[in-house]
Formats: sequence, C-alpha cells, structure tokens
Amino acid sequence: MADLPDGLIQSLEDIATRLRIDSIRATTAAGSGHPTSCASAADLVAAIFFGAMRFDPQEPRAVTSDRFVLSKGHAAPVLYAAWAEVGTIKREELTTLRDIASDLEGHPTPRLPFVDVATGSLGQGLGVGLGLATGARCAGSDARTFVLLGDGETAEGSVWEAAYLAAHRKADNLIAVVDVNGLGQSGPTMWDHDLPAFQRKFRAAGWRTLVIDGHDMRAVLDAVRRGRSGRGAPTAIIARTVKGKGIEGVEGLEGWHGKPLPADGADRAIAALEGRLRHLPPPPIQRPRRRAARVAPPPAARQPYAPPADGSIATREAYGEALVRIGASDARIVALDGDVKNSTYAEKFMQAHPDRFVECFIAEQNMVSVSAGLAAQGYVPFASSFACFLTRAADQVRMAGISRSNLKLCGSHAGVSIGEDGPSQMALEDLALFRAVPDGVVLYPSDATSTHACVQLAADHRGIVYIRTTRMKTAVLYSGDEAFTIGGLKVVRESGDDRLTVVAAGITLHEALAAHEELRSAGVAVRVIDLYSIKPIDRAGLLAAARATHDTLLTVEDHYAEGGLGAAVLEAVGDAGVVTHRMAVTEIPRSGSPKKLLARYGIDRAAIVRRVREIVASP
Amino acid sequence: MADLPDGLIQSLEDIATRLRIDSIRATTAAGSGHPTSCASAADLVAAIFFGAMRFDPQEPRAVTSDRFVLSKGHAAPVLYAAWAEVGTIKREELTTLRDIASDLEGHPTPRLPFVDVATGSLGQGLGVGLGLATGARCAGSDARTFVLLGDGETAEGSVWEAAYLAAHRKADNLIAVVDVNGLGQSGPTMWDHDLPAFQRKFRAAGWRTLVIDGHDMRAVLDAVRRGRSGRGAPTAIIARTVKGKGIEGVEGLEGWHGKPLPADGADRAIAALEGRLRHLPPPPIQRPRRRAARVAPPPAARQPYAPPADGSIATREAYGEALVRIGASDARIVALDGDVKNSTYAEKFMQAHPDRFVECFIAEQNMVSVSAGLAAQGYVPFASSFACFLTRAADQVRMAGISRSNLKLCGSHAGVSIGEDGPSQMALEDLALFRAVPDGVVLYPSDATSTHACVQLAADHRGIVYIRTTRMKTAVLYSGDEAFTIGGLKVVRESGDDRLTVVAAGITLHEALAAHEELRSAGVAVRVIDLYSIKPIDRAGLLAAARATHDTLLTVEDHYAEGGLGAAVLEAVGDAGVVTHRMAVTEIPRSGSPKKLLARYGIDRAAIVRRVREIVASP
Repeated sequence: MADLPDGLIQSLEDIATRLRIDSIRATTAAGSGHPTSCASAADLVAAIFFGAMRFDPQEPRAVTSDRFVLSKGHAAPVLYAAWAEVGTIKREELTTLRDIASDLEGHPTPRLPFVDVATGSLGQGLGVGLGLATGARCAGSDARTFVLLGDGETAEGSVWEAAYLAAHRKADNLIAVVDVNGLGQSGPTMWDHDLPAFQRKFRAAGWRTLVIDGHDMRAVLDAVRRGRSGRGAPTAIIARTVKGKGIEGVEGLEGWHGKPLPADGADRAIAALEGRLRHLPPPPIQRPRRRAARVAPPPAARQPYAPPADGSIATREAYGEALVRIGASDARIVALDGDVKNSTYAEKFMQAHPDRFVECFIAEQNMVSVSAGLAAQGYVPFASSFACFLTRAADQVRMAGISRSNLKLCGSHAGVSIGEDGPSQMALEDLALFRAVPDGVVLYPSDATSTHACVQLAADHRGIVYIRTTRMKTAVLYSGDEAFTIGGLKVVRESGDDRLTVVAAGITLHEALAAHEELRSAGVAVRVIDLYSIKPIDRAGLLAAARATHDTLLTVEDHYAEGGLGAAVLEAVGDAGVVTHRMAVTEIPRSGSPKKLLARYGIDRAAIVRRVREIVASP
Repeated sequence: MADLPDGLIQSLEDIATRLRIDSIRATTAAGSGHPTSCASAADLVAAIFFGAMRFDPQEPRAVTSDRFVLSKGHAAPVLYAAWAEVGTIKREELTTLRDIASDLEGHPTPRLPFVDVATGSLGQGLGVGLGLATGARCAGSDARTFVLLGDGETAEGSVWEAAYLAAHRKADNLIAVVDVNGLGQSGPTMWDHDLPAFQRKFRAAGWRTLVIDGHDMRAVLDAVRRGRSGRGAPTAIIARTVKGKGIEGVEGLEGWHGKPLPADGADRAIAALEGRLRHLPPPPIQRPRRRAARVAPPPAARQPYAPPADGSIATREAYGEALVRIGASDARIVALDGDVKNSTYAEKFMQAHPDRFVECFIAEQNMVSVSAGLAAQGYVPFASSFACFLTRAADQVRMAGISRSNLKLCGSHAGVSIGEDGPSQMALEDLALFRAVPDGVVLYPSDATSTHACVQLAADHRGIVYIRTTRMKTAVLYSGDEAFTIGGLKVVRESGDDRLTVVAAGITLHEALAAHEELRSAGVAVRVIDLYSIKPIDRAGLLAAARATHDTLLTVEDHYAEGGLGAAVLEAVGDAGVVTHRMAVTEIPRSGSPKKLLARYGIDRAAIVRRVREIVASP
C-alpha cells in the first residue's frame, strides 16, 4: 500500500463524503429511499470509480469500458451520485430521485445510459457481471467488471451459481465487492459481521479473497486495484462496513433500512459531513487502455433455409440447426446451456461454434443473468433449457424485461406431449409466464421451417424473445421460402363453409390438422390457424377468421388452461363479440406415452373432433 | 467401523445389487428412464434404508419416521425399488414404471404414499429436507431427514440457500448425501470427481462433512450411521461414485444418461448382477424410537374478527394481524419470511409466535421449499414476501403444485400502486404465475375484513393458496360477519339501470368505487364486483352480472394485461357471448407516487370514468 499517496487517499475520501451528502439529500427530497445502504458503500464506490475503473464517462457501455454493476440496487442514490461525480449526469438532477418525470428511479434501470441491467431484485448482479466479463473477453477487450453486492443478498443462491461458474471459467476480469454492513431490511443478516464466513465461501468457490475495512480508504483502494490478478481466478473483496456510516445518529443502528432522514436530520448530517471535506480536486478518471475491441456487427446477408426432404423433425432439433445456420453468418450470436444441450439441441451450436458457447451447468437463474450481461455487451444470447426449468429463472426474466434486455430464450419439451418423464419435466405454465413479460415476444413454431424462421426473427428483433419447442418429431408444413413475421399467423386450412376456426400451435396444430381431415371426411369444415406468434398476436387475423366462421373460435393448447394460448386469443378478441371455446390441460398430468397423454388430457385429434361436433351441434 | 459385522455389510450389498437389478429391469420395460443414475446411488440408498433410517414402512410420512428425499428425482426407479424392498409397494409393480396407469411415474410424485414432495426439477430436495427436519423438531420428534442429491444439481443455488440456512438453524437432524458420479446429462459436471471441491463448499457453509467411496458399503454404512452428531451442525456425506456402477459395458461411460439398456443388454447385466448375490436375508427395518411426537390438530373454534373502528388499513397489515389471530388457536400455522417481515407484516406473527416463525433471509426459493417440507409434516406454512420476489421461487411453486403441497403464499406490494420504489419491486405478473398452478387458489382481498377472511380460507383449504396484498392503506368495506368463500365474489354496487359491470380487486376496486360515485353523479349507473377469488372464479356470478348489464364487463387490474384478473374473467366467460373490456398496466412502469402511477398507467378512477363513458357512448 506504500505507493498510494496521501493526497489521492484524501481526495477519494472527499468523494466518498460527497456521495454520502448527495445520497442523503436525494432521499430526503424524495421522501423515500435507502440512504443508510448508500452510506455503507460510499467509500467502496468512490475507490472503484476513481481509483480502479478505466472507462469512458461518455461511453459507459462500450465494450472497452470497465463496468460497474450495483447488485444492491436499493443503493441507487450512491450510484447516481457517482455518475454525477464523473460528469455523466448533472448533480442538480440528483434531487429528482424517484419522481415520475425523472429517470433516476428508486432502483436503477437502463433508462439511464450507465446502467447495463435493472437491479433491485437482489442476488442477480454477480451473474450479470459474469456475463459482462465474458462478453468483454469474447470481444477482445481487457475491460473488467466490478459488482457491488450487499451482504444480505449473498443468501440468494443465484449469487453462488455465478460465483461457481466464474471460478470454473477463470473469469479473472470479474471483481465482486461485498458491502458487509451486517444489517438486512428487517434485522441482522444471517452472517452478521462474520467476515471469515464470507471469505470461506468465496474461497471454497475458487475465488481470490481480500478482507478489508470498507471505511479505510487506503485499504479499499489497495484492494480494488488488486482486483485483477492474472492468476486465473475472480476476486472477491469482502469489506466490513457500517450501515449509515458517517450519518450522525443513524450509523450502525437497526430500524433505518429504507428510510430517508427527516429534513432537519438531513441538514445536520449534511453539515457534519461537509465539515469533513478537504475540498481536494478529484483524481482524473482513468480511460480504457485498449480501444480496438468490438463485438461483430449484424451480418449483411442471411443463409437461406431448405427444409429436410424426409419431412419430419422435432422443432427442438430444428432450433439447434437454425442456431448453427444463423450463427455462421452472425458472430453476435452466443448460445448458453444448463446441462441439457443434448435435449435442446444447443449442442449443435456448441459443436459448430465452441468459442461462442457457454455451458452454465444446472443453474438456470445464472444462465439468464449471464445472458443479460452478454446482451449488455452487444451479443445476442440464446439460452435454452427444458421450458419448465426456465421457470427457475422467472425473476431473472422479469428483471431482464425491466432491463429491456436483448435476450432470447428457448424452452424445449413443452407440455404433456413429452411423455414418460412426467409432470416435473413438462412445461405447462411457460406461456403464462413469458406472455407477462412487458414488450416480450412469444413464438411457438410447429415445424422445422417455422422454427428456422422464428430463430431468425428472434435474432433480428431487439428485446426478449421466447421460443417454445416440442420434443416429438412433427411433419414439415411449410416450404423454405414461406414468410413469417413477429405478430403474424398462418391460416393453414380454410374453405367457404367453415363452421368455426381452430387455433393451435406446436403439437396441437398437428392434432388440429388431423382433426380437420377427419371432420372434412364427415362433411364438417373447419378453418385451422397456426398461431406461431402468441405475443404479439394478430388480432385482425383472428377476427377475420372468426367473422368468416360464425364468430366462433376453438383454441387447443398443450399448456394449462390459465394464461396460455387460449388466454392470449381471448385477450385479443374478448371485446369483439367472438365466442371462444378452449381446450387445454386442466389437471396435473401423469407419466405415460405422448399419445396416451394427449388423449387423456383431452387435446388430441379425437378430442378436437368431439369438441367441434359438440359446438356445431349446439344451437 | 470395527463394529459393523461382515454379515450386515454383505446383506446390504445384496440389497444394493437387487436395487440395481430392479432399476435396470424397470427402465428397460418402460423403454426410458435413468438406470445409470440409479446404479451410482444404489449402495447409498441400500445403506440409508436398511442401515440408518428408523421408520414405519406402513406410515412413511409419520412425523416420527425418518424421511428420505430423492432430490435427484430422475433416479426414481431406485427409490421405487427401495420401497419395494421394505415392502411398502409390491416388487411386481416396479415394471409398471412410467405407464399411464401406474403411480410409479418417471420422476417421483406424492401420488405414492412414501413421497413427500415431487422431485425431478433439480436442486430442490435439500430445502424440502430442511423443512421436514424443521417440522420434525417443531413437533417434538427425533426423526431425521436424509436427502440424496446428485452432484450435478449442486450447481443450483437453491442447494446452497438450503445449506446455509440449515447450518444457521443448526439442523443436525438433516443429512445430505451427495452422489458424486461426475457425469451430468450432457457431459461432465462442473466439479467432476473433485470431492474436496464439494467438501470445501459444505464446510464453508458450516456443515460437518464426511468424504467416502460410495461403493464401499462398509464406509457408506459407517457414514450414514454417523449422520447425527448432536454437535449442532447438519452432516454432508460426499460419496465418490461411478455412473452405471455394476452395469457391464456402461459403467463410468459418458452418453448413457437417461437411457435404458436394450433388452439383451439388460438381460446380460442382470445375469451378471444376479451372479453376485449372496442371497442373504435383509437386515430388519429399524423402527422409530420416539412415537409421541405429533403436529397439533386443526382447532375446533375460531376467533371472530372485528374490523378496526377507524376504517383504513393496508391489506398487507391486515394479513399480519390475521395470521396472528388465526395462529393463536391453530398451532399448525407457521410463518416464513425472506427478510421483508417488516413490510409484509409477517413480523407480527414472529412477535406473537416466535417458535413457529422461520426467518429464511433473502432466499425465496428455499423459503418455498422449506414450506413444502413443513407442509409435508402436517404444518400449514404461510410464506410471505414482496409478490414480485415470490416469482424467484416460480419453479419451486410449480413443483409444490405437482406435489399438491398444502402451502400458503402471500405476496405483498402488488402493482404500480407501491409507488416510488419502481418496477423491480412491483408485482405485475404474479397473478399470471399463480393462476397457472393446477388446483391452486388465488385470492386478492381489498380490505381488512376480506383479508382476514382470505387468510382463514387459506388455512382451512388443503392445497396451494396465493394471497395478493396491497401496500397502500385502503378503506374497510365489509363488516366483520360478512361471509367469503373460495370461488366467490361480491357485488358491491348495483342498480336496475347498470350499463355495465366493472370487475376489480385490491387497489383498483377502490378506484372503481370512486369512479362509480362520479359516474352516478353524472347519471351513469355501473355495477361493481369485488373479485376477491380470482381462482377458482365465480363464472355464474360474473355471467349473472353481465346478463343484467348489457352483457358488458370491464375489468380493471394493477397487473400487466396478460394472464391476470382480466384474463381470468375472459377465461370464465369467453364462450358465453359477453363483451369484456380490459384495463391493465401495458408497459414497464416508472418510479413515482402511487397516485401518479395509477393515473399514468391508466387504472385510476379518472381512467375508469373515461373508459366507461367511451363504452356506453359506443353503439
């Protein structure tokens, strides 16, 4: 620590004091917020921003810039104060905190140019940080990622998923800083100020660890500067801190989480803090060293697709093939897996493009967080698992939604049609979950051609896209030049005599087509729609079909009856005087053969035929 | 180990061999399944069932019986074989594996009397085991819980959430056995056969650890017998194993995950295994020592509820009060928290009944798994957090649904009306998520009285119940003796001239009531429904209201437009010729005051008035 001049230390201390002042002022002005959580972190943040990070304040999200992720998102005011300190936003703005007209929200969101992903649901920052670090390395950048964690959030398993994978991947460009103030929202944390307890866990995970006093600026600066070892391991700095540090009458006390100071208390606390300022100039911001790194641009041309001659392939397998094909010309595409790559067919991508494949092992939450980090570096991540296991990452997906992350998720093994493995492996609620992601896109291809199209649409669309694939082989329905669009549908069977319109996707579309044949032979004409775009949904197309078929729709889905394809159709046309009948799985299914399960849960061709006959027979 | 007689060891080895034979035979008969994952675990399972567990084969789920949780649920055949070996099921049944008529499903579910919770989504067994162990202790039982984990699943953070909390709670009646066979589904696991890597992590978590050769029966038996130390720490047995152990031509090879042997290969493997049998009698099953322990029965009488005189209280606060009131006479009720008890008001229960309160810290997945374990011991767990953070446990909730777990979840801070904390803290997809739990109940009270009623309904109902509460204070609408039912609704405003029916719940019900007043003054009559039971839903009640009000409904919800209250109404009446208009949050919200946010996202009283006027003005 001998080479750290006193002037630098004092200058950083001044910055930390200003961060505290700004945090108090902003939260008191807002009437809510977490000043004490900012105060414990202020010294750490000052040292990271002005003593360690190399970045461009005008281009904070460049792949060459070191990144900072505030995993403890409730300390947003200290983040905003730091970016005011470096000049990226104006200091006057800080007191607009939490106002509806301000982008300085209660917890950080990427409405702000320096925020990579929204935080505020705890325990997600380290996985995102690993994604940012992985992306930087992949792009040839030497940039590092600093993640500031609260101690309470280390109870979240997602933190350890990220920690284990970071060590496994030797991500020595990732630095975790844990602000151990010992106090959670509603009481002491599980490990209180037991710093060795944290150190043991990070060490056991394979990390370098440094344990410091988080309010001793010399120790803090030394630690954050030693963040990159070159020794192949990520670094965890475990900092003993005090909640509310530097705020008189509040420091170290319970009962002050998420509470602003009253106006008079804020004035007194600010006056006391101002009295400590030496009014030294801040040290210069350190700029990135290497500026050549970049993520590949989108490709100019696309390879065309030709469906297989033999005409039958599972959409999950078509997904893997499509990813390989599209990834060949689009170097932005990376694929992530949670140890099911031989089932989702992501392994095809791994074999073709091993340098753009990230095996995340059985840790779906972290897979999604790493993907969000990669997306924030300009990559187009495709993360896949069994669709039911993607629900493990529901909160990470929710936060990626708030982040408007450019994330693609593929869930295979949808519905009861997976068969013998039983209900724990069947996704029957995934459409409900993914449809509720704001601005999210939900695609559900039924054959190889539409799967290839959906993967291409996903790659080209900016935002979260979910693709649902099927385990069983299904016939090819479309020629290679058929056009698909986000928000579209296909009328695959129609006649002038159609009595109603069957709306389906995936396995049930094939059942509907078989039912159509059987009904046609019996003289009952029905229209059939392939609803490959569940969200957005083609309201006009659905309405046109309904109007032409006695204002009657019948939805059929391999999904529970709540929130899925049927609900999507109802939400689209429920105000338009259409009668919508629905067929879906309405109980917890068993293990069994796909055919028997489709029959038992009433979504196979025979069930559709019966239901159509009932509907057309009723007055 | 000196006191372990050779005869006992050989007898257990025979059992392990039979478990392997049965697993091969069942999976080959089924044509699918995971024999190699059974084979690596067979010695461990034999030793646990016949050398360590004290249980009643006829009452495997008694609180006095030691429990066994197969966290690596894909090894189901070895579990079924073990229960056949102890006589709880018939050996002949084993070859019905995965048939639609059999309860021997691909992964275990509680259709079987010896399965506490469904497994098959990895990483959830240890948390459930902690719940079982916690419940046993709470009931005065000395029973232990053994959890068999796969090595691959230890990449799931949920395992470490459970490990940390188990150590924190000194759960020395919990024994984890990790089957380290080094191979995942699609390749080697993250830590392969690095047993010290596992040991370091469990030790760092505060566990006793034993590292053994999982195929050396003497070592295995010694370890599982040392499972309870009395030293206040849970025990982890880390067993080096070989995937496919004992199956010729498959043992230790990659590419055999989830694949049955072909018939001829199975015959050869079984013949070879049979050649090893010494045909010794199995050791006697050890019975529980203490039989007096029990969970309290449901109470005979209930305390009545009297709403507060001043007439305004947040439903989240009413939830805490109701839990205290009902918990006073019902000793089955336990409450769990994820470090937000001062916001959800679960802290009221903690203060009143500290012995029935489990602080799970910031680890919602584990909170739900522990709850499922407590429910499996006969307790009625109420787990609460911010509703948005319950999405963190979506997969645990999904599995609890498959388990038909008697689990109650309360999500506070619903919707944009929470205000300044911003979107990361707002639940806007929780209704979509919880509605998709099969047989689940979703309640959404709007005032203190209905909250008390909903908590009582939840306690009395067997199955998963989700209660959604609101942050803001709301007026009391109902007197203490008003009756509520699961599947009911309340028509809170009506007249003979109603032009349409507004359907709302929670904060939007209060907005709807204000809109009703304003519209009434302007001569526009509307009916208003309090849809406190979102699932099941009162289709007849909704239809009656619709028929009386020009077949027109207008739903208003503080939730995204997909899958929520409006979708529930549409799903109920979508085939009945009702025109349903909807108002909901349709974009990612900002931080701001509750009032401004309700206005900005178009779900406040003024928006309702405008929308009603538009609807009644249209032809």
